[in-house]
Amino acid sequence: MGIIGYTRSHEIGVSAIVGLGNKADLDESDFLEFFAQDEATKVIALHMEGLRNGERFLQVAKKVSREKPIIALKVGRTASGARAAVSHTASLAGDDRLYEAAFKQSGVLRARTLEELFDWAKVLVKLPPPNGENVVIHTGAGGLGVILSDACYDHELQLMEIPPDLEAQLRNYIPPFGSFRNPVDITGASPPVTYEETARLIMNDERVDSVIFGYWETVITPPMVFATALARVINEVREQGVFKPVVVSLSGDSGIETAARYLEKQGIPSYPYAPEKAVAALSALYKWMRLTSTSEMEK
Amino acid sequence: MGIIGYTRSHEIGVSAIVGLGNKADLDESDFLEFFAQDEATKVIALHMEGLRNGERFLQVAKKVSREKPIIALKVGRTASGARAAVSHTASLAGDDRLYEAAFKQSGVLRARTLEELFDWAKVLVKLPPPNGENVVIHTGAGGLGVILSDACYDHELQLMEIPPDLEAQLRNYIPPFGSFRNPVDITGASPPVTYEETARLIMNDERVDSVIFGYWETVITPPMVFATALARVINEVREQGVFKPVVVSLSGDSGIETAARYLEKQGIPSYPYAPEKAVAALSALYKWMRLTSTSEMEK
Repeated sequence: MGIIGYTRSHEIGVSAIVGLGNKADLDESDFLEFFAQDEATKVIALHMEGLRNGERFLQVAKKVSREKPIIALKVGRTASGARAAVSHTASLAGDDRLYEAAFKQSGVLRARTLEELFDWAKVLVKLPPPNGENVVIHTGAGGLGVILSDACYDHELQLMEIPPDLEAQLRNYIPPFGSFRNPVDITGASPPVTYEETARLIMNDERVDSVIFGYWETVITPPMVFATALARVINEVREQGVFKPVVVSLSGDSGIETAARYLEKQGIPSYPYAPEKAVAALSALYKWMRLTSTSEMEK
Repeated sequence: MGIIGYTRSHEIGVSAIVGLGNKADLDESDFLEFFAQDEATKVIALHMEGLRNGERFLQVAKKVSREKPIIALKVGRTASGARAAVSHTASLAGDDRLYEAAFKQSGVLRARTLEELFDWAKVLVKLPPPNGENVVIHTGAGGLGVILSDACYDHELQLMEIPPDLEAQLRNYIPPFGSFRNPVDITGASPPVTYEETARLIMNDERVDSVIFGYWETVITPPMVFATALARVINEVREQGVFKPVVVSLSGDSGIETAARYLEKQGIPSYPYAPEKAVAALSALYKWMRLTSTSEMEK
């Protein structure tokens, strides 16, 4: 039920919603196989209370997850949750550690909350795969940079060391009291041209694999001015065939919600008020990449 | 900056916003003392990169936190975040374990994300203190009950065992295929009267200290019908002088957002799409209660 309202409000497409009931006939694995070959489906999100044929699920998920991200919210994780699940679908919730291991082995992303399931599904549809682990934070506010850095650590994203030649180019736009380490802090005194030119430098640098933009509202560069400048740069590099994952965090007055919606419409996941959500979104993409890399799955 | 837009969008009052700058004169402890006696302030939320006089903060916070909840987002927790903090305010981020211990000892709630800081501040203003640890989940959907149960476990909330006499009363309204254990599942086939009468029974039971309502949209009881019935019951028990914390989780089509806003206006924290957020909100209240109980703070 939640999917209906969430996707309508967030303007996300849904190719299909399937309720499995008591699984007397078809189960999760059958639908994974179906949606794997369904062209309208880019990401598969599962809500499950229990599995009957775990071995088949493992085999099927392992194959499908390399093609399309599979996200699972396995509920009934805890003693009280499991008791409630038995009462709801008579489904044995099973040992949670078994599910944890099975998801890992088969490349399934495990969401811990319904909100993560929705958020991850949304961003995995939108974000292109990164070429590597080099993440750069670009921000207009030092304090926001600190919060984003903490979140990168929590979500196991690697902040790239800014190479001297890139730093030299950035110094043409950023005042000396900014920061040229990662996070790159262009400072709150920057006019729109600084946002645009520094974003362009970072987006065009081949060593940078993903970018987190942390916007902090100023009078000099209001939310929609920032948003349109950023969208211009991103569409420009896309036209040159460069696709790298970008997420945006916005702090400020309620006008940032309009700016976030505008960026979302340009295919750029954008989060007002909750910087950690932008980082969590990007990290879902990295989790999927790492889980389904050949070396990881052969373990 | 984020506080401005967040509070405007969520219609929360703000008594004051203070930026401490480089703290050449006044620091966190001075403002804790001021806002402790400020009648317009019900909750104090702190964003901090580092403390200079930790001992004084500990003393002041210990006293103030018993009167008013203090929530702190201490950033620069991680190596990369700390490096960014030094660059931002030249504030030494310090050893994070020291802060963790200091917050615990002084009854300060530690938020891990900016969103938690905002959400907790919001609910701590609205929710009355519970009399004890007995939490009841009331839901119209078994699957939602499972998710809420998992979240209660994760957030250390205790689900009360439903006493036989309360169960007997509930059985007058709930069909036999519902659940009379906790979560109480009135089932998706219930008409509005079932929501209202079972909510009334649970709200009026003195053994129940807090209630989590999990609404799941049905044609028989649409979102606003549920919301007005619930608000009626809660206002009725309030008029009888009974104040117990209530949070609401709503799942369904986008109309649940209107119902959530309506409930919020009645002073009932309500969360569309994100059941775990409702539970996290209630748990913030319990965390504060436990942290500031005399026995805990003398440790």
